[in-house]
Amino acid sequence: MASVTVRSSSHDYEVLIGKGLRRNLGEVISSGYTSILVITDSTVQDYYLQDVQESLAEAAPVFSAVVPAGESSKSMGRYEDLLDRCVELKLDRNSLIIALGGGMIGDLAGFVASTYLRGIDYIQMPTTILAHDSSVGGKVAINHPKGKNLIGSFYHPVKVIYDMETIETLPESEIRSGYGEVIKHAFLSDAEWAHRLLKGKLSELSVDQLENDLMRGIQVKASIVEKDEREAGIRKYLNLGHTLAHAIEAELGYGEITHGEAVAVGLLLMMKLSNDLKGAELPLQDYKEWLIRNHYPISVLNRIHPEQMVEKMKLDKKTLRQKINFVLLHELSDPYVVEIEENQLVEHMSLLMNEVSGE
Amino acid sequence: MASVTVRSSSHDYEVLIGKGLRRNLGEVISSGYTSILVITDSTVQDYYLQDVQESLAEAAPVFSAVVPAGESSKSMGRYEDLLDRCVELKLDRNSLIIALGGGMIGDLAGFVASTYLRGIDYIQMPTTILAHDSSVGGKVAINHPKGKNLIGSFYHPVKVIYDMETIETLPESEIRSGYGEVIKHAFLSDAEWAHRLLKGKLSELSVDQLENDLMRGIQVKASIVEKDEREAGIRKYLNLGHTLAHAIEAELGYGEITHGEAVAVGLLLMMKLSNDLKGAELPLQDYKEWLIRNHYPISVLNRIHPEQMVEKMKLDKKTLRQKINFVLLHELSDPYVVEIEENQLVEHMSLLMNEVSGE
Ligand SMILES: NC(=O)c1ccc[n+]([C@@H]2O[C@H](COP(=O)([O-])OP(=O)(O)OC[C@H]3O[C@@H](n4cnc5c(N)ncnc54)[C@H](O)[C@@H]3O)[C@@H](O)[C@H]2O)c1
Ligand SMILES: NC(=O)c1ccc[n+]([C@@H]2O[C@H](COP(=O)([O-])OP(=O)(O)OC[C@H]3O[C@@H](n4cnc5c(N)ncnc54)[C@H](O)[C@@H]3O)[C@@H](O)[C@H]2O)c1
Ligand SMILES: [Zn+2]
Ligand SMILES: [Zn+2]
Repeated sequence: MASVTVRSSSHDYEVLIGKGLRRNLGEVISSGYTSILVITDSTVQDYYLQDVQESLAEAAPVFSAVVPAGESSKSMGRYEDLLDRCVELKLDRNSLIIALGGGMIGDLAGFVASTYLRGIDYIQMPTTILAHDSSVGGKVAINHPKGKNLIGSFYHPVKVIYDMETIETLPESEIRSGYGEVIKHAFLSDAEWAHRLLKGKLSELSVDQLENDLMRGIQVKASIVEKDEREAGIRKYLNLGHTLAHAIEAELGYGEITHGEAVAVGLLLMMKLSNDLKGAELPLQDYKEWLIRNHYPISVLNRIHPEQMVEKMKLDKKTLRQKINFVLLHELSDPYVVEIEENQLVEHMSLLMNEVSGE
Repeated sequence: MASVTVRSSSHDYEVLIGKGLRRNLGEVISSGYTSILVITDSTVQDYYLQDVQESLAEAAPVFSAVVPAGESSKSMGRYEDLLDRCVELKLDRNSLIIALGGGMIGDLAGFVASTYLRGIDYIQMPTTILAHDSSVGGKVAINHPKGKNLIGSFYHPVKVIYDMETIETLPESEIRSGYGEVIKHAFLSDAEWAHRLLKGKLSELSVDQLENDLMRGIQVKASIVEKDEREAGIRKYLNLGHTLAHAIEAELGYGEITHGEAVAVGLLLMMKLSNDLKGAELPLQDYKEWLIRNHYPISVLNRIHPEQMVEKMKLDKKTLRQKINFVLLHELSDPYVVEIEENQLVEHMSLLMNEVSGE
C-alpha cells in the first residue's frame, strides 16, 4: 500500500492506494462515526458494494444509496433524492458518506456531503482510472441542463481510498478514458515518465505499473491544487487538452465519447499548436502513434468542423473576443497559458485533421 | 457610518452600518463585477429594490430575482429556480449576488451564491433587525420538509451593508423578533448593556440606539464565530435561549410565532434554570417585565406541555439520553454548557408556567 498526503485549506488528507483495500475499510477509516452512507452507481454496486458494506459492518451502522450508472445521474433530481435519503436515515454531523465509484459518483456524493447539515465528512473510493483525477482537489458538482458542473462546491474528502483491484473490471473504453488524464499529468510534470508511457500499450499494463501511474498522477494533481485551490492561477494548467475536449464533448453530445478520450484528442491539438505556432518540439508523432495503438477515437477529428469548434470554445470560456486562452507546453513538463487567434486555431485544426484522416 | 471587520478562514469582510447606504452602493461595492443579481422577497422589493438597482446602475448590469416573502421560500424549489435564473442570466465567476432582505433571503441567496459555479461573491444587505445575527457568520441554508436549515454551507459574504433606514418600515412583531437576538447578544457579553436594554421600551427606540445595539450585537456574534467558525466549541453559546425556542417553534408550527420572539421566551427559561438550579442571580423579574412591556407573547407558555417540549428538545438535539444540553449563564456575560435532567426540566418549566400565567 502506498500513500500521499494532500494539503488543503481546511485540512490535510491521505490518499491510500493498494490492492484489496475495500475489504479492510475498518482498519483505515477512523472510528467514532454514528452512521455511514455508501453512495454508488448501479454498475459498481454489483461488483463492490457488498465488500464495502461487509468490511464496515463493525465500524458503524452502514446504509447504501444507489443511482443509475452514467453521467445523467449527476443531476439536481438525484442530488435532492440523496439529501432526502440522508434526512430519512437521520444522518447527523458525525455521520460519514462514502463515494464508491467513478468521477460521476465522486462529484455527486461529494456535493451531497458538502451541503447536508452544512457539510459532513466524506471519503472518496474511486473505482475508475479517471477518478484518480476527480477524487483529489475538492471540486464537487452536479450538472445543469445548460452546462456541466455549474452547481457545486469546493469541499475536500477526509480520505481517498483507492483499491487497485476494483480497476480490473473496468471496460477498455474507461481505461482509455482514464489514461487520457494520466498522460496529461505526465505531460505536465515529467518528460521521462511521458516517454515511458508513450512506448506502452494499455492492454499490456501490469497492475504495478498502473498503481505507479495513478500515484504519480495524483501527486501531480495534488501539488498543483495545493498551490492554487480555487483556480486563481496555476490550477488552470490542469486544463491542458481540455479546451478542445470540452468542445468535442459538447458537439458530439455527452456519452458519444468519454471525457478522457476527448482529452486525449485535445492533447494532440495542444501539441500541434505548441510545435507549429510556438516552436516547441513535443513528440507529436510518437503521441499520435500511441493514440492509434491504443484505439483512441481520433477519427472524431473527421466529424467536426474547425469553425464550429471555435464557436463552442468561445461559449465555454464565455469570451466574446477573437482570441482564446490555451494551455500549451514549451516542452514536456513546462506549461504556460497563451492567447491564440481564432483564425490560427481554425487553420491548425484543419491541418491536424488532414494529417490524421485515413488513420 | 460605522464599520466592523469580521475575520473568517477564507477572507476578512467589512460590516458597514449607516443611514441611506442603499442609495450609495456604487461607492461601497468594489468595481469590476461583470454583472450583479439582486435577490429579494416580495415585501422588501416594494420598499427598496428600486433604490438598490438605481444606485448600482453605473457599477455593472443589474438583474433581480424576487421570491414570495416568508419562510416557505427558503426551499429546495426556490433554490433551484434561482440557480436556473443565474444560468439564464449567464452570471459568471466575476458576477456578484446581493441578498436584500431579512434572514430568510440572506440564507437562501447565500446558499445560491455558495454553490453557483462552486461559489461566487455575495453581499448581505440585511433589512430586518434579526438579520444583524444571520448576516454575519457565514451560515447559509435552506429548509427541508423534515427540518430547518438541514441543507446549506458555511460561506461568508464579501461584505455586509446595513442601511438603518430600511428598518423603519419593519412591523412591530419583527422589531420584537430582532430584539430577541439583540438581548441574547447582550446577555452573552455585557451586563451593563443588558441592564440598559431591560430598562427600555422598543417603541421608543431611537435610530441611534438601534444602530448602536445592532453594531454591538454584530461585534458579539463576530467575535464568537471568529474563534469557532464551524461550531466545534464556543459557537454553541449562540444557542442561548434556543433549546426551548426551537421546541416552541416546532410545536406551534413555524409562522405562529417569530423566531426571535421564541428565543425571547426561551431566554426566560434559561434564566429560571440558571437561577434555580445553579444558583445564579440573573435579573429574571426585570426581564419578565421587559417582555411584558414590549408585548412578547409569553402567553405561549400556557399553550405548551412541558413533557412534549422535552420530547421535541430531544428530537432537535438527536439525543436518546435522559439529559439535555443547555446553555446557561453563571452571571450576565458568562455562559456555559451544562446537561440538565429531563425531570428537572419538566419541573422548572411547570414552575415558570405558573409564574407567568395570568400575565
Ligand atoms: N471533480 C473533479 O475534479 C473532476 C475531474 C475530472 C472529471 N470529473 C468528473 O468525473 C466524471 C467522469 O468520471 P468517470 O469517467 O470515472 O465516470 P463514471 O463515474 O461515470 O464511470 C464511468 C463508467 O464506468 C463504470 N464503472 C465505474 N467503476 C467501475 C469498475 N470498477 N468496474 C466496472 N465499471 C465501472 C460506471 O458505472 C460508469 O458507467 C464526470 O462527471 C466529470 O465531470 C471531475
Ligand atoms: N444564518 C444564520 O446564522 C441565521 C441566524 C438566525 C436566523 N436565521 C434565519 O433567518 C430567518 C429569519 O430572519 P428574519 O426574521 O429576518 O425573517 P424574514 O427574512 O422572513 O423577514 C421577516 C419578514 O419581514 C419582512 N421584511 C424584511 N425586511 C423588511 C423591511 N425592511 N420592512 C418591512 N418588512 C420587511 C419580510 O418580507 C418578512 O415577511 C430564518 O430563516 C432563520 O433560520 C439565520
Ligand atoms: Zn478532465
Ligand atoms: Zn436565533
